[in-house]
Amino acid sequence: MKQKIINDPVHGFITIDDDLLLRLLSHPWVQRLRRIRQLGMTSLVYPGAQHTRFQHATGAMHLMQLALDTLSSKGVLVLQGEQRAALAAILLHDVGHGPFSHALEHLMVNVDHEVVSDLIMERLNSEMGGGLDLCINIFAGRCRPFLHELISSQLDTDRLDYLKRDSFFSGVVEGAVGADRIIKMLDVTPDGHLGIEAKGIYTIEDFLVARRLMYWQVYLHKTVVAAEEMLRMAVRRARNVLRQGGDIEASKPLLFFLANDIDEDRLRSDPGVLPLFCDIDDDDVNVALKCWARSDDKLLAFLSRSLVDRRLFHIEMSREPVSAERVEAERCRAERLLDLDAGAAEYLVRTGQVSSRTYNIGIDHINIIFRDHSVKDISQASDMMRLETLGNADRRFYISLPRWDEY
Amino acid sequence: MKQKIINDPVHGFITIDDDLLLRLLSHPWVQRLRRIRQLGMTSLVYPGAQHTRFQHATGAMHLMQLALDTLSSKGVLVLQGEQRAALAAILLHDVGHGPFSHALEHLMVNVDHEVVSDLIMERLNSEMGGGLDLCINIFAGRCRPFLHELISSQLDTDRLDYLKRDSFFSGVVEGAVGADRIIKMLDVTPDGHLGIEAKGIYTIEDFLVARRLMYWQVYLHKTVVAAEEMLRMAVRRARNVLRQGGDIEASKPLLFFLANDIDEDRLRSDPGVLPLFCDIDDDDVNVALKCWARSDDKLLAFLSRSLVDRRLFHIEMSREPVSAERVEAERCRAERLLDLDAGAAEYLVRTGQVSSRTYNIGIDHINIIFRDHSVKDISQASDMMRLETLGNADRRFYISLPRWDEY
Amino acid sequence: MKQKIINDPVHGFITIDDDLLLRLLSHPWVQRLRRIRQLGMTSLVYPGAQHTRFQHATGAMHLMQLALDTLSSKGVLVLQGEQRAALAAILLHDVGHGPFSHALEHLMVNVDHEVVSDLIMERLNSEMGGGLDLCINIFAGRCRPFLHELISSQLDTDRLDYLKRDSFFSGVVEGAVGADRIIKMLDVTPDGHLGIEAKGIYTIEDFLVARRLMYWQVYLHKTVVAAEEMLRMAVRRARNVLRQGGDIEASKPLLFFLANDIDEDRLRSDPGVLPLFCDIDDDDVNVALKCWARSDDKLLAFLSRSLVDRRLFHIEMSREPVSAERVEAERCRAERLLDLDAGAAEYLVRTGQVSSRTYNIGIDHINIIFRDHSVKDISQASDMMRLETLGNADRRFYISLPRWDEY
Amino acid sequence: MKQKIINDPVHGFITIDDDLLLRLLSHPWVQRLRRIRQLGMTSLVYPGAQHTRFQHATGAMHLMQLALDTLSSKGVLVLQGEQRAALAAILLHDVGHGPFSHALEHLMVNVDHEVVSDLIMERLNSEMGGGLDLCINIFAGRCRPFLHELISSQLDTDRLDYLKRDSFFSGVVEGAVGADRIIKMLDVTPDGHLGIEAKGIYTIEDFLVARRLMYWQVYLHKTVVAAEEMLRMAVRRARNVLRQGGDIEASKPLLFFLANDIDEDRLRSDPGVLPLFCDIDDDDVNVALKCWARSDDKLLAFLSRSLVDRRLFHIEMSREPVSAERVEAERCRAERLLDLDAGAAEYLVRTGQVSSRTYNIGIDHINIIFRDHSVKDISQASDMMRLETLGNADRRFYISLPRWDEY
Repeated sequence: MKQKIINDPVHGFITIDDDLLLRLLSHPWVQRLRRIRQLGMTSLVYPGAQHTRFQHATGAMHLMQLALDTLSSKGVLVLQGEQRAALAAILLHDVGHGPFSHALEHLMVNVDHEVVSDLIMERLNSEMGGGLDLCINIFAGRCRPFLHELISSQLDTDRLDYLKRDSFFSGVVEGAVGADRIIKMLDVTPDGHLGIEAKGIYTIEDFLVARRLMYWQVYLHKTVVAAEEMLRMAVRRARNVLRQGGDIEASKPLLFFLANDIDEDRLRSDPGVLPLFCDIDDDDVNVALKCWARSDDKLLAFLSRSLVDRRLFHIEMSREPVSAERVEAERCRAERLLDLDAGAAEYLVRTGQVSSRTYNIGIDHINIIFRDHSVKDISQASDMMRLETLGNADRRFYISLPRWDEY
Repeated sequence: MKQKIINDPVHGFITIDDDLLLRLLSHPWVQRLRRIRQLGMTSLVYPGAQHTRFQHATGAMHLMQLALDTLSSKGVLVLQGEQRAALAAILLHDVGHGPFSHALEHLMVNVDHEVVSDLIMERLNSEMGGGLDLCINIFAGRCRPFLHELISSQLDTDRLDYLKRDSFFSGVVEGAVGADRIIKMLDVTPDGHLGIEAKGIYTIEDFLVARRLMYWQVYLHKTVVAAEEMLRMAVRRARNVLRQGGDIEASKPLLFFLANDIDEDRLRSDPGVLPLFCDIDDDDVNVALKCWARSDDKLLAFLSRSLVDRRLFHIEMSREPVSAERVEAERCRAERLLDLDAGAAEYLVRTGQVSSRTYNIGIDHINIIFRDHSVKDISQASDMMRLETLGNADRRFYISLPRWDEY
Repeated sequence: MKQKIINDPVHGFITIDDDLLLRLLSHPWVQRLRRIRQLGMTSLVYPGAQHTRFQHATGAMHLMQLALDTLSSKGVLVLQGEQRAALAAILLHDVGHGPFSHALEHLMVNVDHEVVSDLIMERLNSEMGGGLDLCINIFAGRCRPFLHELISSQLDTDRLDYLKRDSFFSGVVEGAVGADRIIKMLDVTPDGHLGIEAKGIYTIEDFLVARRLMYWQVYLHKTVVAAEEMLRMAVRRARNVLRQGGDIEASKPLLFFLANDIDEDRLRSDPGVLPLFCDIDDDDVNVALKCWARSDDKLLAFLSRSLVDRRLFHIEMSREPVSAERVEAERCRAERLLDLDAGAAEYLVRTGQVSSRTYNIGIDHINIIFRDHSVKDISQASDMMRLETLGNADRRFYISLPRWDEY
Repeated sequence: MKQKIINDPVHGFITIDDDLLLRLLSHPWVQRLRRIRQLGMTSLVYPGAQHTRFQHATGAMHLMQLALDTLSSKGVLVLQGEQRAALAAILLHDVGHGPFSHALEHLMVNVDHEVVSDLIMERLNSEMGGGLDLCINIFAGRCRPFLHELISSQLDTDRLDYLKRDSFFSGVVEGAVGADRIIKMLDVTPDGHLGIEAKGIYTIEDFLVARRLMYWQVYLHKTVVAAEEMLRMAVRRARNVLRQGGDIEASKPLLFFLANDIDEDRLRSDPGVLPLFCDIDDDDVNVALKCWARSDDKLLAFLSRSLVDRRLFHIEMSREPVSAERVEAERCRAERLLDLDAGAAEYLVRTGQVSSRTYNIGIDHINIIFRDHSVKDISQASDMMRLETLGNADRRFYISLPRWDEY
């Protein structure tokens, strides 16, 4: 029997001994996830956060195995084919992410990463002669609900892995969730949905709070948001310069996506585009930034050099939107202080909003299963959490801009 | 220079190099804390939770040192004498706990453990020729507020240590708090109180939720509450049998406290009582339970044997008080099923209430210090927590009783 | 299906769902292991080392399960009955330990603890109608060798658990062994013995060195050895005083073993002795020490008080035996300085030897299994270790005695 | 006071509050270490090993601070200037590493990385107006020996950090060393060299064995060695193709070093070369490999594609050199099976040797300091280690080659 054992600092040993899974694991498009970091720019703030989407994908697969084992031990029948398909689905759940994931989403290709994941899975399914049919059905939610919910829901193994893993590598220890306890308490509701035993309610409360902590302390850390804004502006500037006939250095596949607008139609109809997309990763962008730091375009050079040398912009966050006056004033200052092209200020002084998206009442569900088999949503069952505020309302407005005093 | 290094699995190496502290550390009344476990009966549910009040006291002292270092680095002047006194105060903060701490409080001596701590400190102060004067003043809140608040408040080093430590030893990993981050963010408000920088607000939210988790998952775990109720009833029965002339085996100091009602007056006026109290610890009670399990008093034997062999009572918790009818019915059942003395049922079928006491609005305070030096209480500053429910309202009523089906 | 999940800070969740194992686990003689600490006096030096033999027994059982799973995945057929029996055997492997284990072995009963374990298993087997027959056969080495070797050999799950656990709780992090990696590399040699894949050789070298480190840093730490010598002398003194008609306080079962010489014959022939032995644990001894600290016998009081208040004797270790002259001189000093009875000096000034017993060439075996199925002993396969020195030669001679300058 | 706190998952919080150190930390040539992974290709085997030289440099600086604190507490006078200089020296100790560190050393520039480090330090010293004079003197061993030995010796803080860190991120838990304990036991010998208290000897033995484990289990893991050989051959092929007029894609700085032979003279005399070298990092090479995988040069494409898709070569290690006949036979096979250019076989079938370099008797020293202030080398003081075998003799010969069955 072929077998692969991965030594994971988070979960210990991860064993894979299924042929289909081994084949997927060694596929170049999965191996490529080794070159896309899970948290993008975050390592500029938390230097330990260098872990990759490959590590996360295998870790989530490991938790899926544990979750299915728990459900089986509680009498939930899971066929062997379903098990393999669910493991494949979680392994591939984020396979469509491009370089720097969310930060550059819609800038490389004008498509959600989920659509790219779907397309990749379809291609892999063709390669494997339909071996991923069930996997794709589970992923799309066309099988028993709890199987899909293990891949995508408030209690999916995706979240359980990434929260534990991001806490581990960032060093934000208080973000650690009780993934093992949550998994031990998973069950299926009478109508076939994923749920959790009532005695796990405090662990779930902690899970939601830890998750929100991770958002504001790590994922949406001010400095990370500023760096991502800079990154987006550098890429946008490079694209614009290129499209206006300027000279932009980059690897060939990256150049292609800078030069062309790729939408979902193009991605589906032109068979050469998807493999080209799978050729780019964090490294292409990082190398390009170093090239651009020497660009003749002063704005591009300024943005890129600042990123490469980690001279990050100042950012302010608040609960109120930034006033148009403030933006206008700062942009004037940018043009006055920095000797850049007209229009550059718009790239430097940026506003936007971020949101922790922890829990949206009415949309998200965490089913609490009581001893009498009745089921309540956590928002009803918990007496401590103001879950209504964990929805989209948990948002901040920001303005990011150069540190004027450094110029 | 004399120096002692303690190898603590939670904090690493703890160094003590102050003569006063070294003298306190080696005092029999501090060494005695090695024989009182931090979590009493909890190890019946979480076998790892064997750690002692001695470990906690030295750990809290270590965190106090870190907290004072942080405050100093932020410009808060702390004199060397104050520092030593604060370290002594946290080392001694729980020195008055008796065997099984809270579970047997008021049963051994009819006095709060804080009063016993005060009395012990006074005696130690006499022994040390007034060397603990400042320590006692800080402990009593007669010095600068933040010094006292480092010992006793929502953000004291007591809590920071015990939450981290109890999580570590119980294995309830999701209860871990960001003690190190909280300490790094400590500061003093303009009016001299302890506070925390605003950017630490998410860590504080997590701290409060983790704390509540620890209450319901560990400290007030159903089975722990049931075991503590059994323990109290065994001790009460032993006391009653003894006082009615029965024969009760126990170590001499324990016998003394079973035979006599000791109140604060007696404790203060009779110089021999305090040393006698300091002679008893968990072990006396554990050995007594094994003796009592062979007692002629059937009720005492039943309660004690059940504890020793870990055949713990059933317990139900709910948000509503248990009805008098239910209690009456269960007590009848007890008398019918178990061949015990009249009146025994009251020892077996118990009701009570427990509360997580996490945060009482208006009484507890966590000062959030903003960049402009303004200060808000966490209950105002946090938008996620329903802190009003973390107060006394976060309570459960219980009924504990023998598992009838086992007899 | 009945199931018990233990939350172990070392291994995570330990699941037990076999009826026989659950019954054993709840037996009073197994529950009793909750009151015997794994490392006895060691917590006087490493305060975290409060963990119990109960924790170790369940942890070793967990590793046994993992080991059997690994062997099965490599094609070694293990029947379900063998599996349950092996799990029961490791759960019970140390059930015969008395209070303070090795430190008081042969002082409580004049019998090896292994003999007591055998007797307990036989009694349990009777209670369970022969349900432990196979377990006892495996334990005694009457089944396939590798099954016994998983319980008792250089690579047994006993050692794997205790090294990892003792490292965890003592805080001596460098003593951690790669238990999980070792288990993943276990295999069975062509002639049916336990072995390890050749690529695991470095982990085995580390295991042997870590083990030796744990001996000298923790188990045989000077101060621990001194404290154990004091403990033995206190118990011996109490026994002698008692047998000479003196008044000695202790719990009844402990008094019985102090008053009577119990050898293997008596233990086998008198059915009441074994249960009485199972009634004593660390707590009886600890409480007795506190009583004895108030004894009229000055020597007993001195030894006991010193232990209770942790005023531990001085100890010197060296590779050479202590000269008779040195001993004589120190004993004279003892009699001159301390106002004690004649003959007391022999209790105070003690010599002895300790040995790390890490690996005895020719007796111990660790089979290294190469890809061509050939097998070599680690002492042949390793080029780094001087394993000959890890045998009995790795020994130290000590003299322990009061700190004269303190009197 | 300016202050920077780094959240390190290995050591916790690292605080830097010295202006010189803060300035160095933010220098582009130090920031560049964020883009050079500590263990190069190792993450192909241990996916968690993504940590960077930046993390290691700051971690080692943290341990340096702890080591200096320990020495001060033992009465070793360290001036504030020396302290800052030592911290700067360890921060910069590996600043001269290029992409993939050792694997590509002498291929990018024909110079040891230590020389590059020296040159960088000199430049930084100029920039900082001589502020690094003392730092450079310590680094070069022109000050008190123990200061230099904290940076470079068997017990330097470099090793203490990387062993702990590499163990943490690779998940090879048994490779963890007792860095904190070693540091607590550091002292200075009567003649001014770094040493360790005799009671630390077991921790040192464990340190040496753990280090050797890390070599064979991680740094020199067969698959890692194979991947590094492939990487070297890809770079060499690209260089040769380029120099023979072929078309090679790469970032401009990387192209420069592929096209030109740079020796120490050139590096010193041409002021533009060093900054160019500091412009390349792991990412340039990774992106180049992806480009080269599409190269017209079949050999280059084969090597690069295999690396990018992680189809790694087979490797055999043994204690005996590989015979010339074997190499010849395999190279014939390569030319027969793979449709590649003449001469390609030499790139594909590689032999070499690796060595753990753990301890070279007579060259390396670990001073064990006894209570009587006498000093012995560990090779004399330890009775367990065969240290003679830990020297260069601890070497393996390898042959690496394509997996023929895959073609």
